[in-house]
Amino acid sequence: MRPADVSDQASQRAILARIRFVLVETSLSGNIGAVARAMKNMGLSRLALVRPKAGAQGFADADALARASGADDLLQAATVHEDLAEALAGCRLVLGSSARLRSLEWPRLDAAAGGERLVAEAVHGDVALVLGRERTGLSNDELALCHFLVQIPTNPDFSSLNVAAAAQVFAYEVRRHLFSGGDGAGALLGVDDSRPDLATADEMDGFHEHLMRTLIRIDYADAEQCATLSRRLRRLFHRARPDRTEVNILRGILAKMTPRAGGAD
Amino acid sequence: MRPADVSDQASQRAILARIRFVLVETSLSGNIGAVARAMKNMGLSRLALVRPKAGAQGFADADALARASGADDLLQAATVHEDLAEALAGCRLVLGSSARLRSLEWPRLDAAAGGERLVAEAVHGDVALVLGRERTGLSNDELALCHFLVQIPTNPDFSSLNVAAAAQVFAYEVRRHLFSGGDGAGALLGVDDSRPDLATADEMDGFHEHLMRTLIRIDYADAEQCATLSRRLRRLFHRARPDRTEVNILRGILAKMTPRAGGAD
Repeated sequence: MRPADVSDQASQRAILARIRFVLVETSLSGNIGAVARAMKNMGLSRLALVRPKAGAQGFADADALARASGADDLLQAATVHEDLAEALAGCRLVLGSSARLRSLEWPRLDAAAGGERLVAEAVHGDVALVLGRERTGLSNDELALCHFLVQIPTNPDFSSLNVAAAAQVFAYEVRRHLFSGGDGAGALLGVDDSRPDLATADEMDGFHEHLMRTLIRIDYADAEQCATLSRRLRRLFHRARPDRTEVNILRGILAKMTPRAGGAD
Repeated sequence: MRPADVSDQASQRAILARIRFVLVETSLSGNIGAVARAMKNMGLSRLALVRPKAGAQGFADADALARASGADDLLQAATVHEDLAEALAGCRLVLGSSARLRSLEWPRLDAAAGGERLVAEAVHGDVALVLGRERTGLSNDELALCHFLVQIPTNPDFSSLNVAAAAQVFAYEVRRHLFSGGDGAGALLGVDDSRPDLATADEMDGFHEHLMRTLIRIDYADAEQCATLSRRLRRLFHRARPDRTEVNILRGILAKMTPRAGGAD
């Protein structure tokens, strides 16, 4: 789904600027840095931290900066909050990431649907994704502040993603839905058929005639085998869809294969 | 697209076991550990390392184990290789991750289409995703071993993902397509994937070596031109995705091209 009014760049930027990632009591500053990098990679910028467990240097220490790898600006601009409710101020939609199956019955979305929902609602106002503690995730009280629990489908025997890895998947899903409309057409980029200079059918015919003539001359095939062999080779080169330059290379090779014939080919 | 026969658990496990992630010259052991965790989170297990830049303890050092966070078994089972071609032996499909826009024209897939393609072809045999160096990615020669370049859509101003973050996105896309059938849009174009007997990466290597050797011998190219020409021809035959019989035909032709050399080829 891609709202009609998010197709221009200004709207897309505005939407990205309304999507907030909120980290609750993250223990390792390196993870905060890695989340910043993952966000910036996907064009997100608003990072909020609830009670980060920082050392003496604060959360933006050497580990954080190393893992941020150039997303220092997001660390600089990050807001720090005493509790989650404060960090969520102004948000019309809040999704809470959770690996664990909860006894608590709560509406759930998978990561793809979560990314779609964040984009769709950011058209109208601020939205947030909340990521919990490395070991214990979000408490039930914190989850209660979320409209939906979002889950990344995982191997049930090893289901706990690193917090920055989870942030990367969610940020990726946001961008996927914002810019491609999810899974519409155009997943295949730069495929063969967009190349402007594909060899034409008659050029390919000329090549195939040249090829078969050469194969007979070098004694690879006799005239009888030619029909079957030619079909096989046509099928092979059909799949390749050569452009004009490539056909010229191939014909240059064929010409070199039979130099004694006087180069009439 | 979701082949009908991957809906049972045994088939899904078999498919996951045929998908290989290959890391080329990863500098930081912590990243290797984080890739192992990302893979295991999504049910993948086959990790191959090409010339990992390890310290005295080898690549499975304290950093790697900390970031693996319980995926130690993948580190233990990881295979180590001297070159990329060796790490790709037996693979019918090879995708190369790339952040950079390349001048070299190469068929491209986005991450979603890449995950879909890996799953679809792992029904028939081994497949690989290749992730390059932290700073410089994959060389052109390494890319030439790949059928497709796969790209994660990013913020163009900050496009370089951490290698483990990229691995997480690709592994997520693999699982998304395997277990939910992706989004059913049928983005998988072309018929290649259903052919059971595609030539493997090492068989194609053998063919390309044979081809270049022959082109030098018949005086079509000299050693200097070879690198560029070889990339061009690899790209052409990558698109064709020859099966084993077709490779045998092509090599038969090459053998006939240089009869005076004594047939050592």
